[in-house]
Formats: sequence, C-alpha cells, structure tokens
Amino acid sequence: MAIHHLVASLLLFFSCCHAVAAGAGVRGRLPPTLATWRQYAAAAAPPPQVVQYETRYFTQRLDHFNELPASNGTFRQRYLVNGTFWGGAAAPVFVYAGNEGDVALFASNTGFMWEAAPRFRAMLVFVEHRYYGESLPFGGTRAAAFADASAAGYLTTAQALADFAELILSLKSNLTACKAPVVIFGGSYGGMLAAWMRMKYPHIVMGAVASSAPILGLNSESKHCYDVLRNSWSEMYKALATDAGRARLNQTFNMCKGNVDDIPGLVEKALIYGSMMDYPTPSNFLTSLPAYPVREICRAIDKPTSGNDTVSRIKDAMTIYYNSTGGLACFPGAGAEDDDPYGMFPGWTWQACTEVIMTMSYGIGNATVFPPDPFNLTAYLAGCLATTGVPPRPHWIQSYFGGYDIRNVLKRSGSNIIFFNGLRDPWSAGGILKSISNSIIALVEPKGGHHVDLRFSTKEDPEWLKKVRRQEMRIIADWLKQYYSDEAIDSMMN
Amino acid sequence: MAIHHLVASLLLFFSCCHAVAAGAGVRGRLPPTLATWRQYAAAAAPPPQVVQYETRYFTQRLDHFNELPASNGTFRQRYLVNGTFWGGAAAPVFVYAGNEGDVALFASNTGFMWEAAPRFRAMLVFVEHRYYGESLPFGGTRAAAFADASAAGYLTTAQALADFAELILSLKSNLTACKAPVVIFGGSYGGMLAAWMRMKYPHIVMGAVASSAPILGLNSESKHCYDVLRNSWSEMYKALATDAGRARLNQTFNMCKGNVDDIPGLVEKALIYGSMMDYPTPSNFLTSLPAYPVREICRAIDKPTSGNDTVSRIKDAMTIYYNSTGGLACFPGAGAEDDDPYGMFPGWTWQACTEVIMTMSYGIGNATVFPPDPFNLTAYLAGCLATTGVPPRPHWIQSYFGGYDIRNVLKRSGSNIIFFNGLRDPWSAGGILKSISNSIIALVEPKGGHHVDLRFSTKEDPEWLKKVRRQEMRIIADWLKQYYSDEAIDSMMN
Repeated sequence: MAIHHLVASLLLFFSCCHAVAAGAGVRGRLPPTLATWRQYAAAAAPPPQVVQYETRYFTQRLDHFNELPASNGTFRQRYLVNGTFWGGAAAPVFVYAGNEGDVALFASNTGFMWEAAPRFRAMLVFVEHRYYGESLPFGGTRAAAFADASAAGYLTTAQALADFAELILSLKSNLTACKAPVVIFGGSYGGMLAAWMRMKYPHIVMGAVASSAPILGLNSESKHCYDVLRNSWSEMYKALATDAGRARLNQTFNMCKGNVDDIPGLVEKALIYGSMMDYPTPSNFLTSLPAYPVREICRAIDKPTSGNDTVSRIKDAMTIYYNSTGGLACFPGAGAEDDDPYGMFPGWTWQACTEVIMTMSYGIGNATVFPPDPFNLTAYLAGCLATTGVPPRPHWIQSYFGGYDIRNVLKRSGSNIIFFNGLRDPWSAGGILKSISNSIIALVEPKGGHHVDLRFSTKEDPEWLKKVRRQEMRIIADWLKQYYSDEAIDSMMN
Repeated sequence: MAIHHLVASLLLFFSCCHAVAAGAGVRGRLPPTLATWRQYAAAAAPPPQVVQYETRYFTQRLDHFNELPASNGTFRQRYLVNGTFWGGAAAPVFVYAGNEGDVALFASNTGFMWEAAPRFRAMLVFVEHRYYGESLPFGGTRAAAFADASAAGYLTTAQALADFAELILSLKSNLTACKAPVVIFGGSYGGMLAAWMRMKYPHIVMGAVASSAPILGLNSESKHCYDVLRNSWSEMYKALATDAGRARLNQTFNMCKGNVDDIPGLVEKALIYGSMMDYPTPSNFLTSLPAYPVREICRAIDKPTSGNDTVSRIKDAMTIYYNSTGGLACFPGAGAEDDDPYGMFPGWTWQACTEVIMTMSYGIGNATVFPPDPFNLTAYLAGCLATTGVPPRPHWIQSYFGGYDIRNVLKRSGSNIIFFNGLRDPWSAGGILKSISNSIIALVEPKGGHHVDLRFSTKEDPEWLKKVRRQEMRIIADWLKQYYSDEAIDSMMN
C-alpha cells in the first residue's frame, strides 16, 4: 500500500512531489501551506464588524527584473484599504504582506492590525499576493494563470516583493504621503515576506512584524501525544492491508466516501494543523477548534469514548480537530468538494516545487510522532520537475535572501524587525528565536501557536498573549519615533 | 545644423535617445559610459607585471527572477582569478564588480586591489558583467545578444547583481571557503553595483568599496575654463554654418576624414573625459594624458600655440586630450575604426535607455561650459523606446535600490561601505559625499578624479592620494576584524 506522506510537521512541501516520484500519484491533498488550509466545507465565522475596507486594483507589471517585451504585460493586483484611522500626510501605513491565499481571509483574521491602527493613526492596506485570490495574470482565471510553466513562471517571491514595493510607492505617491512610514506585517509565509521586505527594501518599509516566519528553515519535532500517535501508524497501515481491517477502519472512522486510504493523511493533517493552530482560546480560523486543541486531542487519546483500541483513540482525536461542533456526519476524504476555498492551490504547489524549498531539514527523524521517513531530495526534486515542467532551484532562496547563517548578517545590516514565534507551532523550529540586536527582536512564547499574536484579541486571552501584543505595539512605537526623528518630521505620535 | 549633444558633464545617457527624438539621427558615438570610453585607436599601455590571472567561465543562469522555461537557459560568464596571495580557508576574497566593458580592462587598471591583496592575503576575482566582454548570451556574439529586445532584455542591474551572488557563492563553495569574507570593489557604474551588492546581498558580501559611484544621481556642474569654453560653441556652430567657416575648421582641426560636423562632439567628449580622468599623475587608462589634464587643457586655452582665436585655442586644448604623445596625424571623427575596443556598446545604450536612467537632474543649466539645454524627459523616453523597442522604466532603479533619500535608510539598514569621490570628477555630484555612519564612510578628495583611488600607485602620487588609499585599507581591515570576531574565526589578520 502506497504511503501517503501528505504532510509532516517538519516538512514544508514534501508529499506531493515525493508521492509523484514514488509513483504513488498525487492522492489526497497537495502539501498544506504554512498559513492556511481548509479541510472541509464548514463555513468560517463572519469577520468582526470592524473589518471594513475598500477593494482596489493595482495595475502590476508582470516581470520586474528583465526588459523583455513580454514582461511589460500587466495583471490586476487586488488590495484592500481602510483609511478610517489614518492621520494623514506622515502618519503610518500598515501593510499586510499577502501570502498564499485570498487576501480577504487574511484581512479578516489579522485582528492585531485592526486593533493597532487607531492607536497609531495608521492606514491599513492588505495586499494580495500575485497568483492568489483575484490577482491572477493572463485573464484572471486560475486555469490560465497556471496553464503551464510559461504562465506560472512569474510566480516567485522576488516578483511578489517587487509587487509590494511598487504598489506601496504608488499608493503613497497618490496620497502625497511620501514621508509616511510604512510598517509591514505578515504571518507564516507572509511573515517571511515581511522580513524579507524589510531586508531587501528598507527604503520602502521601515519596519516589519514577522510572525511565525520560518526563515531559517525547519529543524525540530513535535512531541505531543508521542507514544500513541507514534504507534498509530503501524496500526493504521496494518488495518489498511486487509479487507477486514479496511472494513473496520471504515466503520470506526466513517469516511464520507468510504475512502479509508485517506485516513493516515487525515491524521497527519490534523496533527500538523492542530499544532499550528494550538491557540489558547477557541478559534474559528479555518475550522472550529477549542482552546488548546492539541491538549484536547491528547485528552481524547488518553480518555477515548469510542473504544480503547488505538484506532478508536485516534478517531476520537480526529473528532476534536474535524468535528468540534458536532455538525459533521462523516470525515471527508482527500479531494472533497470545496477543498480549497481560499485558492491556495495550485499556487503553493508551484512555489513549493520551484523555489520555496527549504533544504535545511527534510525527512522525519526517529523522535517524532510520525513514522521515520528519511528524505530523498533527489526524488523530491525529480517529482517537482515532473509536476511543474521546470527544474527546481532549491538554493535560490538562500542565495537571494540569505540562509541559516543570517543572524550575523542581520546584526550588521538589518534593523527594525520583530520575529514572533509560538513554540507550540512546529514552524517555530525554523524561526528566529533569539533577538539579534536592539531593533531585531525575537518574541517567543512557549504556549503560542501559529501567528497567534496577529489574531483579534478576546476576553479569554491569557496574560502572556496580551503581553506579547503590548510589546509589539511598543516596539513599533519606538521605530516610528526614531523614524520621525531621523526624518525631522513632527511626530504624529503625540 | 543639428546639434549633436553627444554628452554633457551632467548627463549620463542623454544624447543618443535625445538625438533620435530630435530627428537628428544617431551621429557619432552613443552616450559615453561612466567609466570608460575609447576615443581612438591608440594602444593602451600594457598592464603592470603583477596583473596575472587565470581566465575562467561560470555557467550562469539567464534569468534569476522567474521560473519560465526559457530562464533556465545559460551563458558563459567570464571571470579572472588570482589566488597567489590567498591565505586559504577563511582569508578574504576581493571581488571586482565588473561594469560596462571587457573585464580585462578593469583588471589591468584596478591597481588598488592588486596592491591590497598581498597585505590582506586575499584572493582576487574580477567578474565580467553580463552582456559585456565575452559574457554574452545566445551564442557569444554581440549581434546575437543584442539582436532585439527579446535577446537584450536580460541585461538589467538586478540580473547582474544576482550573477555576482551566484558566482561568488559557487566559487567559495568549490574552494570550501564558505567562511571567507568577501569584499567587493567597483568604480563608477561598478561602484554603484558594489554598493548595491552590499545593500542587497549583505549575506554574501561583507563590505563594499564604491568608488566614484553616483548612486544619488547627478546634480552639479563643471566650472573649468568656463568662459572660453562656454563661448566656443557659438563660434563653432557659426563656423559650421558657412562653407568658408567649415573649410577653416577643417584646416585648424585637421579632421582625419574632413568631418568637421564632429568637432563639437569631439570637444564635449574631451571636456567630460578630461574631467573624469583628471588624475594627479600622467595616466594611460584609455588615452595618454598628462597629470592634471584639465589644468593642461585650460593652459592650452590660455596660452595657445596655434592662434589667438577661439577655434585655435580649442584645437590646442583638444591636442592635450587626444594627442599628448604627438603621434596623432589628425583628429578622428565619430565612428572611427575600433571605436569601442572594450565592448561597451550597445550594452550601455541598452542599459541607459531601459533602466539606468537617472531622472534626478537632466539638462544643462546656465552655469556650465556647455550651451544651456533644458532636458526633455518625454523626448528622451520616446527616443529610448524607439531605440530599444521596450518602454523605459525610469523609476525602477529607485524603487529597487532606493533613491536620493537613501542616506537615512543606509544609516539604519546598511553598513560597511566606503564611498570615495574625487571632486574633479563630474560624477561626484551624484555621489555620497558625507559619511552616513561609523561604517558607511565617505572619503572625498577635492583634487581627485574618477575612481582615482582604485588605480595603481605611482612614485608621483600626491600625499592626499596616498592617504586615501591608506584610509581605505584601514577601514577594510576594521571590517575584517569585526567579521572574524562575529564569526568567531581566528583572525587571519595577525
């Protein structure tokens, strides 16, 4: 039975290409993105009342880095603007670095920006990443944008950053606000973009809040519910190997279409996203989760209701992740309808297979809940080439942005970046966890999940979360103060 | 009579496109480059004995910034290596940022690097800029590389910097010298590249010596031999307007092919390059010049030998520039044979018309030796479009690298750059003339010419020149010391 390594807590972009290379075909979901992935069609909660904006479109150049005739082509890049709080002229502009999905999703979920804007009298701008959401070249459909490598080939991080640069400069120019300081925010891949934006375009953004941004690549393992989960795989594979076992799995898990082969993938995803979204309060980002879902998952494993055997325990754990509200009749298999409502694919597969390949650490070692699985980079790259039609460039991100040894570089050549990481988030393993200088500051919360700092505040927020947000506000205030002083502008802060 | 504005001390890339727009046709030379331009076929002096190197070729990717199938194409990028002085392992690597011409020319003339290398135990690497010298894509001929915009379109500064990045990383990797600190040097456009390299790729180059790099654009005027020169234009144009005048011009100037229309251009070029190469010692960079050629030019104007009329005075001045050695029988007109032995064109025209367009200051004001000539950007850009076939992007350089307000940005987000400028050099007007921080240092010499600091030292060097070179060595030593300390490497400096 082919093993579907759809995702693992250590890998960013492992399964799709690996599976292809192994001849297993692309079954189930493509690699989940860093930030977001929707498992099934449950509706997300409507955004809070404060989330209001005007939708605009910027005519963006196709390729910023050469002077070929075709590069002069354009596409409409969507961005969302709220100027309600803006103090005008030299008051700040807070920009959200759109990542791999529809920007409206991020606008609705980045509450920190909405709560900070009035205090800084900032304008809010959420910029959609090219090739996601509505910001699609070649006519505006995903089919055309990803028709082949000649169409998709303009989807790279460098182009995305240059998009942000041009859009921000144009926006400020149109507002006659050329002196307005720009702070950029991002979570996950967007956090990487925010940090890189500050590093590459310091003349355009004067500070970056990079939340849960694994810019160092990934390098450690999850340790939750270790033993049961670790042993569960062999149980599941054993069951999948016989008719009786498969029937039993179907009965226990009640897959909507009886596709029991998808069960290991279901579990993997739940573990990864449960870890990422291990928020201290109930959340409804992509799926309804209780507070500290990983704790609840482990509770379900330790005190099952369905049965004492391993498979039943796992099933109860999966109920926590997929069916907290109890509204789900069955577990969806891979390829379920409306599986990608925020348009993350095939963009993210493209990026993962061409460029955003973190070769720092691949494979699953012996000390995780997942079955050990040494990574085969050759097979991975071969699979990617087969998928995209162009040879992957695993080294380019490090050539262009710097790699795991970026710390000393940032100490001397960077400033004004906040790196937040929550240690419950597996991606934190690739993050900057120690401050680099007076103005490049690591905020690390042992109990934090994936970019929890960027979420809307709630009454139930624990003290550590409130503190982190206060710290971020204070650091941003310091940046702005220094900026206004450098530029000899009467501070808008008083 | 159409006025040929071939060049002016304030403009980088004025005449070609402007002339085209004015319908004058492209007569004479295309805009001279920042660094080099050879007026006639006099042989340059052979390089000093110490200039020895191995010529190598790096397989360089065509387009670093997208994932289109065609971008995976490659070309052979030439680079010259001398490892004689290298201390191995973590000893420094000094890289020359090739600019608009054959790299061998720069290798022979950047004596400062040859003299510094033994003292720092540095390896020397001179990297040729894509589309110049031998580093031509699409088969290796200039005709193919510049056949049309689809071929030439890969010639941009961003691509050139990415070339340097990839080549340096590869070189270090092959030497197993990943910890070796890299210092990049460049003069003129190459100085801009060096500074930008440090700004964009601080994780690859830990310091930059940017000599005569007008990264701020241009903003002032030359004041030499003001009056005579200023009045000479009307005299020359008046003479060109009549048969008798033309005959007299031909007799006085003795043009090789009797092409008296080229005389104003001859004079313009001599004034500009004379200013740029206003070195304190005799030089033989492109043409044989006495020490302080501008002083000599003005002496010839003040104490002529050919006659007391303006045209004769100008002719004597031109003799200083074009015929110091006395070996020239006649003045060459435009389009003289072997007019571009270092292969600067059409590459530089391409760059000047697509991207490296400094819109800070154009046109000639009232206070120069040249006839006032307000700049018409619209005409300029229209001319460029007609020349290249692609719309110019005058703003992009500033979007990507930062513009005239870069100082505050560099103060917070940059380090380890030396900006040298000699004030006799017109390009100094666009340079950084004041230190920005403890490690971004402006060295300004009132008597200095275009990247005079980078030249080989001579017995006749004035004290200010020796001092500047000592300062640069000391600053580089400080960078290396800090680097070795940061990286906890036993210093190779002791």
